[in-house]
Amino acid sequence: DDIAEGKAKAQSCAACHGKEGISSIPMYPNLAGQKQMYFEMQMKAFRDGSRPNPIMANFAKPLTDEDIRQIAAYYASLKH
Amino acid sequence: DDIAEGKAKAQSCAACHGKEGISSIPMYPNLAGQKQMYFEMQMKAFRDGSRPNPIMANFAKPLTDEDIRQIAAYYASLKH
Repeated sequence: DDIAEGKAKAQSCAACHGKEGISSIPMYPNLAGQKQMYFEMQMKAFRDGSRPNPIMANFAKPLTDEDIRQIAAYYASLKH
Repeated sequence: DDIAEGKAKAQSCAACHGKEGISSIPMYPNLAGQKQMYFEMQMKAFRDGSRPNPIMANFAKPLTDEDIRQIAAYYASLKH
């Protein structure tokens, strides 16, 4: 299901955003419990550059819409 | 103190981001419990346009750095 697939795909996000989606780095946002639609819009904006962020562009570029939907579903599902 | 001042200044944010910082609109992010430094960086990016968003630019433009710091402290203080 989306959330399980999203969790697997989110392993590379945990380094900055925390294993449970609560970041330990003040510059990086908590993602746990964030709105799924907002999350998807931001990842697509990082991917196409409309939200300029060189770090996130690298992570977002290889992701498909399905990857993004699943990762978003995973983080939205986390208690915060 | 920063949080009380921030709460007063965040009244205009509640319409989209919710009275307790949990948005009821899927396109708009939850703000409750978000990292203060991340929040300040994003509001300044909306203010100077480096994060392009016509809606948020309107809200951010009139804010001083102190306003932003206080609003950020308020939302960071909210349980989420």
